[in-house]
Amino acid sequence: MAVNLTAPKILLPVTGIRLGTAEAGIRRRDRKDLVVIACEPPVNAAAVFTRNRFCAAPVRIARRHLSQTEVRALLINTGYANAGTDPYGEADAEACIKVLAEHLSCPPQRILPFSTGIIGERLPIDRITQAIPDCLKALKEEAWSDAAAGIMTTDTVAKGCSRQVSIGRKTVTLTGIAKGAGMIRPDMATMLAFIATDAAIDPTLAQACLQEAVTDSFNRITVDGDTSTNDACVLLTSGRAANPPIIDRDDPSYAIFADSLTEVCTHLAQSVVRDGEGATKFITIEVTGADSERSAQTVAYTVAHSPLVKTAFTASDPNWGRILAAVGRAPITNLNLDKLEIFFDDLCIIRRGMMAEEYTEAKGKEVMQQAEITVRIRLGTGEVGVTVWTCDLSHDYVSINADYRS
Amino acid sequence: MAVNLTAPKILLPVTGIRLGTAEAGIRRRDRKDLVVIACEPPVNAAAVFTRNRFCAAPVRIARRHLSQTEVRALLINTGYANAGTDPYGEADAEACIKVLAEHLSCPPQRILPFSTGIIGERLPIDRITQAIPDCLKALKEEAWSDAAAGIMTTDTVAKGCSRQVSIGRKTVTLTGIAKGAGMIRPDMATMLAFIATDAAIDPTLAQACLQEAVTDSFNRITVDGDTSTNDACVLLTSGRAANPPIIDRDDPSYAIFADSLTEVCTHLAQSVVRDGEGATKFITIEVTGADSERSAQTVAYTVAHSPLVKTAFTASDPNWGRILAAVGRAPITNLNLDKLEIFFDDLCIIRRGMMAEEYTEAKGKEVMQQAEITVRIRLGTGEVGVTVWTCDLSHDYVSINADYRS
Repeated sequence: MAVNLTAPKILLPVTGIRLGTAEAGIRRRDRKDLVVIACEPPVNAAAVFTRNRFCAAPVRIARRHLSQTEVRALLINTGYANAGTDPYGEADAEACIKVLAEHLSCPPQRILPFSTGIIGERLPIDRITQAIPDCLKALKEEAWSDAAAGIMTTDTVAKGCSRQVSIGRKTVTLTGIAKGAGMIRPDMATMLAFIATDAAIDPTLAQACLQEAVTDSFNRITVDGDTSTNDACVLLTSGRAANPPIIDRDDPSYAIFADSLTEVCTHLAQSVVRDGEGATKFITIEVTGADSERSAQTVAYTVAHSPLVKTAFTASDPNWGRILAAVGRAPITNLNLDKLEIFFDDLCIIRRGMMAEEYTEAKGKEVMQQAEITVRIRLGTGEVGVTVWTCDLSHDYVSINADYRS
Repeated sequence: MAVNLTAPKILLPVTGIRLGTAEAGIRRRDRKDLVVIACEPPVNAAAVFTRNRFCAAPVRIARRHLSQTEVRALLINTGYANAGTDPYGEADAEACIKVLAEHLSCPPQRILPFSTGIIGERLPIDRITQAIPDCLKALKEEAWSDAAAGIMTTDTVAKGCSRQVSIGRKTVTLTGIAKGAGMIRPDMATMLAFIATDAAIDPTLAQACLQEAVTDSFNRITVDGDTSTNDACVLLTSGRAANPPIIDRDDPSYAIFADSLTEVCTHLAQSVVRDGEGATKFITIEVTGADSERSAQTVAYTVAHSPLVKTAFTASDPNWGRILAAVGRAPITNLNLDKLEIFFDDLCIIRRGMMAEEYTEAKGKEVMQQAEITVRIRLGTGEVGVTVWTCDLSHDYVSINADYRS
C-alpha cells in the first residue's frame, strides 16, 4: 500500500547504456531476478556505498573494481544479499562475474556485482550464471522499466525517474531506478539505485556530484536504510550526449547537471519511503533555525525514528506531546525552549515553547488525516535547516518483519 | 501480557515512611490514582530526574524544593503528566501542594510533586485536592502494595521490591515501587520510582549512591524511557534503623548498602521492561570486550533499538543477520570484524566475524522460542562491558500506541 506512488510511465533511454532482465529462479520461480546493465564502450562510474562495516561481498568487490578501471557492465541479483557469507561470499560473486566477463570478452574487473535479499545464505552460482545469456539477449536501451521491476524484492511498486536538461545546447538525459521497500530492512538488504547519464563530465567531479546528491536524498530517508550491508548508488556516465565536458564546479553547466541529478536521487529516495514497509503516511520532517547541520539532523532523526511519533501518524492522532518529547530528548547542546516552534503543515502547535492559542485538537486531527504531512520544527537558534523523509509505523510493518522468514 | 512478572507478594515497611492511596477520579473513575508518601519527621531525599529538556512542571518544582529543605511528603498523581502545560503547569502543581502542606502544617517546599499520564492537558486541581484527606486517612507504613497499584497507568502488573541487609548489626530495610509500562512511552510519561530506606546515610553520599544505582539499572533499559518528560527516581532515607551512619565511600557498610540499592533498582527496572507495551520476550543484550563504556553502550543500544531485531524476537526467528547488520552500523570507531563473536545464550552464531560451524537454524530456533534470551556480543577490542535490557516489538505495541488516545 504505497503512499501516492505508481510505477514510472516513461523512463528515457540513455545512449550507450543497455539493460537486460531475466528469470534466474534465484530464490523464487516466475519472477525477474537478474539484471545486466551493459555499457559499450566502457564508461566512467561514480558510486556511493553503505558505511556498514559488515558490508556484503559484492560491495567490497565493486568498490575494488571501481578503483581499477572503467565499467563494462553491472550484474545485479535479487533473492540473496551475499552478506554474512564469509569466507565464501567474494569467491561466489567472482564466479558469477567471471561468466559474464567471458560473454562480454572483457576483464572481470570491468564488471561490478550487486546483490540484494536475504543475509547469511550463499548465492546459487549455477542458477545465476545459467541465466546470464538470457539477460544478454534481452539487452536494449529502452529496457529501464523491465530492469526497475527486475531489482524489486518486497517492493510493491517499481521505482524510476528520468530528467532531461540542456547543457551546451545538447540534450542531456538522466535516468535512474531504485529498489528498497522501506528504510529499515537490513535483511532485505536494502537500497540499490542505478542512474545513468549521457552527459560528458569529469569522473572526479561526477563522484563529488553524486556524493552531494546522495547526501541530500538517500541519506535523508531514515537511517537504517543508508547503513545496511548492501546499499549502493551508482552513476554511469556514458558521455554520449556530446555536450562540452563539464570539468569545473564553477561551470554553470555543473549546477544544471547537479540539480538534475539531485532531483532524480530525491525522487528515487522518496519513492523508497512511499513504498516503506506498511507505510500509510508520507511524512516530511523539516527542521530549520538550527545552529548547525548536525543539530538539525539530530533533531530531525530523533523525531523521525521515534516509534511513538510514527504510531501516532498511523492513528491519525495529533499527539503532539510525542513530538515535543522527542525534540526535548534529542542529544543536542543548544536547545532554547523559549524559541521553539512546531507546526503540522501550517498549523502552529507550539509557539515560544508553549501551546499555540489558535491550536485545537480538531484542527490537528484534520491535518493528521492527510496521507502526506509535514512536521515543521523551528529551533530559533541559528540559520541551518535540514529535511528528512519518513513514514509511519503500522501493524503491517510488524507483520512484514515478524513473519518475513517464516 | 508481562514476561515472567507478578505483583510483589510482600513489601516490607520502612520505619518513618507511611503511604496513603485514594481514588480522586483524576482521569478515570474507580481507580486508585493519588498517592501520598509521608515522612515524619522529615527526611533527606536523593533523586535522579529526566534529562529531557521539556521536563514537566512537577519535575522542575521537585528539583527546586529538594535543593531547599528536607522532605515531609511526596504527592503523586496518575492520569495527567502536567507536561507541555506551560504557562499553567507550575501554578497548578503548586495549588495541589499547598493544600497538602496545610494539612501537614509544613511549608510547601517540603512537598515534592510527581505526575504521570497524558501530556498537554492541565491537572484537575479540585479533584486532586479533594482527595488528599482520603490519602492522609489511609496513611500507614504497611501500605506499599496499595501505593504500587496507585501509581500504575497502563502497567498491567504492580511493581515493587524489598531487601534487608545488616549494617553495623542493625537490620536495614530498602523498599521500592515503580511504574512504567514500557520503555518508550513519553506520553504516558513515564517511569516513576520511589524507594525508601531506614538506613542512616550521609545525604551527599546517598545522592551519589542513587546516581550510580540508576546508571546500572534504570539507565540500562532502552533509552526513550530514561528521557521522557516526567521520569524520576527518588530515595527517601529516614535513618531510623539506627545503624552507625554511613558517611564514607570506603566504609564497608557503603558497599553493602549500595549493592542492595542497585539490586532494588535493577529489579524495578527489569520489571518495567517485563511489563513493556506488547512485550512477549525479555531480552538481555550483553556486550563485552569493548574498548570503552561508550562503545559498549553504543553497540548494545543500536541492537536493542533496532525494530528489525525486535520484530525477529517477536517471531522467534533466529534472524541473526539483523543483529549483525545492527552491530555493523553502530557508530563506534573501533570495530574489528575478525574478532567479533555473537551468541544467543550459549549458542555461538558468529566467531571471528564468520558464521560458526556448529550453528544451525534448528538450534537458533530453539533458543529464540524462549521467553527470556540473552544476546552476547563480544567485540574483542578491550575489557569493558555493559548489559542492557529490552523487549520485543509486537502487534500489541502498535495497537497500544496507535489506539491509545482514540
